[in-house]
Amino acid sequence: MQFGESGKYLDNLKYWVSEILNQMSAEIICVGTELLLGDILNSNAQFIAQQLAQLGIPHYYQTVVGDNPERLKQIIEIAISRAQILIFTGGLGPTPDDLTCETIADFFSVPLVERPEIIEDITQKFAQRGRVMTPSNRKQALIPRGAEILPNPTGTAPGIIWEPHPGITIFTFPGIPSEMYQMWQETAVPFLKNQGWGKEIIYSRSLKFWGIGESALAEKVASYLKLPNPTVAPYAGKGEVRLRVSAKATSQTAAEALIAPIEKQIQEIAGLDYYGANDDTLASVVGQLLRASQETLSVAESCTGGGLGQMLTEISGSSDYFWGGVISYDNSVKVGLLGVNAEDLNQFGAVSATVAQQMALGVKTRLATTWGLSITGIAGPTGGTDTKPVGLVYIGLAGPKDEVESFEYRFGVMRGRALIRHVSANAALDLLRRKLLTRINGIQAPSF
Amino acid sequence: MQFGESGKYLDNLKYWVSEILNQMSAEIICVGTELLLGDILNSNAQFIAQQLAQLGIPHYYQTVVGDNPERLKQIIEIAISRAQILIFTGGLGPTPDDLTCETIADFFSVPLVERPEIIEDITQKFAQRGRVMTPSNRKQALIPRGAEILPNPTGTAPGIIWEPHPGITIFTFPGIPSEMYQMWQETAVPFLKNQGWGKEIIYSRSLKFWGIGESALAEKVASYLKLPNPTVAPYAGKGEVRLRVSAKATSQTAAEALIAPIEKQIQEIAGLDYYGANDDTLASVVGQLLRASQETLSVAESCTGGGLGQMLTEISGSSDYFWGGVISYDNSVKVGLLGVNAEDLNQFGAVSATVAQQMALGVKTRLATTWGLSITGIAGPTGGTDTKPVGLVYIGLAGPKDEVESFEYRFGVMRGRALIRHVSANAALDLLRRKLLTRINGIQAPSF
Repeated sequence: MQFGESGKYLDNLKYWVSEILNQMSAEIICVGTELLLGDILNSNAQFIAQQLAQLGIPHYYQTVVGDNPERLKQIIEIAISRAQILIFTGGLGPTPDDLTCETIADFFSVPLVERPEIIEDITQKFAQRGRVMTPSNRKQALIPRGAEILPNPTGTAPGIIWEPHPGITIFTFPGIPSEMYQMWQETAVPFLKNQGWGKEIIYSRSLKFWGIGESALAEKVASYLKLPNPTVAPYAGKGEVRLRVSAKATSQTAAEALIAPIEKQIQEIAGLDYYGANDDTLASVVGQLLRASQETLSVAESCTGGGLGQMLTEISGSSDYFWGGVISYDNSVKVGLLGVNAEDLNQFGAVSATVAQQMALGVKTRLATTWGLSITGIAGPTGGTDTKPVGLVYIGLAGPKDEVESFEYRFGVMRGRALIRHVSANAALDLLRRKLLTRINGIQAPSF
Repeated sequence: MQFGESGKYLDNLKYWVSEILNQMSAEIICVGTELLLGDILNSNAQFIAQQLAQLGIPHYYQTVVGDNPERLKQIIEIAISRAQILIFTGGLGPTPDDLTCETIADFFSVPLVERPEIIEDITQKFAQRGRVMTPSNRKQALIPRGAEILPNPTGTAPGIIWEPHPGITIFTFPGIPSEMYQMWQETAVPFLKNQGWGKEIIYSRSLKFWGIGESALAEKVASYLKLPNPTVAPYAGKGEVRLRVSAKATSQTAAEALIAPIEKQIQEIAGLDYYGANDDTLASVVGQLLRASQETLSVAESCTGGGLGQMLTEISGSSDYFWGGVISYDNSVKVGLLGVNAEDLNQFGAVSATVAQQMALGVKTRLATTWGLSITGIAGPTGGTDTKPVGLVYIGLAGPKDEVESFEYRFGVMRGRALIRHVSANAALDLLRRKLLTRINGIQAPSF
């Protein structure tokens, strides 16, 4: 290189910086005896792994170790020999077995200092709940001299971002997943991007489907499953199927441009079985449709016992369209509060098309809403008979002109009580979604 | 030692055998690039960790590494320096990136041999599905010379049990959890028990608390946190605190005998803040108390939108005591279905002690139950004011003689909508639990 060639010099510099970045890698170190005892699933490692992949940060090893200072030090020794970014989770709590921060400081022979801003933060958090900080929480304010505080917006355990040696960066996070996720997003990601990471990113969108099985959907979109970029991969769980569409690109915008046409084509192939993407839920999609048409909804729940209402009200602002409902677990409530005919209850049973229809119309009328949605079924594990097995569920839907329909589902005894209830509530939302999208009488419920 | 003292000799021998066993430990090594990409949760590590604890096999480290022979060899080198039992999962499949078995053999410089019994087994499994074995499956029949086959009853990937050096035992399992679990139970457990493990087991009970913070509870039971056997360790999450009490003993009965007195003492110290153990939930405990007193419950929910009813009905058989309720999300439902006074609603607001009391009494009266429990609050993130911030929740409780109380909680805006709703529903159950246990007017709600 000659000094006159400044453009080339800069290019070379960029090349070497990128080379150095490429040689760097991260290691995830999860600390906690509860992980060694198998008491908890290591979901933190999965979350960080996904995040590192999105930022394009190589990551070759994950280690789990207990709350033991000597073993933790051995792990740090090994980790700094093969990685430059060490990401710790766990062991930041107030109790005596939480030793991560002090062990790291000890390993690098750096003293801990009490940071008044942490004491202040913890004191305030306790005050908000009308409580006083305990002496043991004071320990959480001790961090290695020279480390930056990685603030914890919700909990009392702050993390650190620390360069104990040039070329080694240490992050610590509490083990509680919700706290860790938020701290990662709000502080670690901007820090790492500022360091030059995330220039080539992997960006994904999750497309969501209801009313079609994983293999049936996979066959319909078979040619897309072989694409190199974006990639398309199916996942299934809890009655729902998802396709994850992942693109590698230099920016989220570029990745979205790669994903958009594929997403559109898949939506067209899937038709009404596609219901949304990413954070969309059947409840949020139904909510958007109701808000758009300025209509309202009430629910009458038997076997789901409130689960449908809970799903609807998970959405902030759902009070615009969801007015409430009746949990008619006991038959007396079906008769007394919903006006279900006692003779029909006797003749057809609580789990029947007739009762589902009367529940839906009853709640719609009493709460004066545009739509009434009802669920009655046998969630099990007991209560099934030959003609009415566990997993038999009727969903009723009463509409604007008091027209009422019902749909029969057989979710199968093998799915278990919790899943039958979950799938029932979502199937009810899916029915209303299809109705709102088509506004045609006699919609076809998807089979299961 | 003199040779005449054979009893003592045997005792000494037993002691030394147990010493050697005690010095041994296992390491879990999970192989798979999908783990490094965060595509899957490492449930295999949790399963093996639980199993090792049950067998009393110490286990201090878990490592995750990708499908990369060089890195896998480095991991083996580290593992044999600190553990004697190496348990591998993953990388036994038929595809080219499945390299675990050959890399282990290569590390110990032992050739692979094709085992005809594996070829036979795979051929039969394909035939059962009406298919012919693919050439790539042939690779799965190659195992290190001298290794024992660890049969896979359902899949095509067998594992191995192998002692490459005296004092080092290697197990390999496929990464598919259902196959791994079955192989572990059917072959690895008998093998390890035959080696003398499982004579001493670790058995744990999880004690659950509501209405006390982790650090406050840890301080109350501080002396127990230092016990050697059983050990007591605190955990916290979603408003709840747990103490895990783990005993090492020769049988579950012996472990339970060690745990029982400690559990009893902790219960006495914690008083009403202790609510149950293991699978108990606040809903199940309330259910047991209601069933015992032959009383019934109904609920009126505003901000939880059905979540309280859902928790109660998660319990199979809850129809014995839970009759249902009203989801009064909109104020019109509070007035129309629960009989809340419209003027009081205007004067005090929906989130007020007065309205909580009227909701509780209203639902109890209309559903003719012994108890009525109500929740009204601001779950956020919007809707808060200076005097009524997000996280402000009133819980109303109406009792057998129509006596009615209400309790104010401030869960804090930082906890977020989902957690505020979750904690609110549990706080309501906890209030009823305390009431049922004490039957004294004017119970004190715990602070948060």
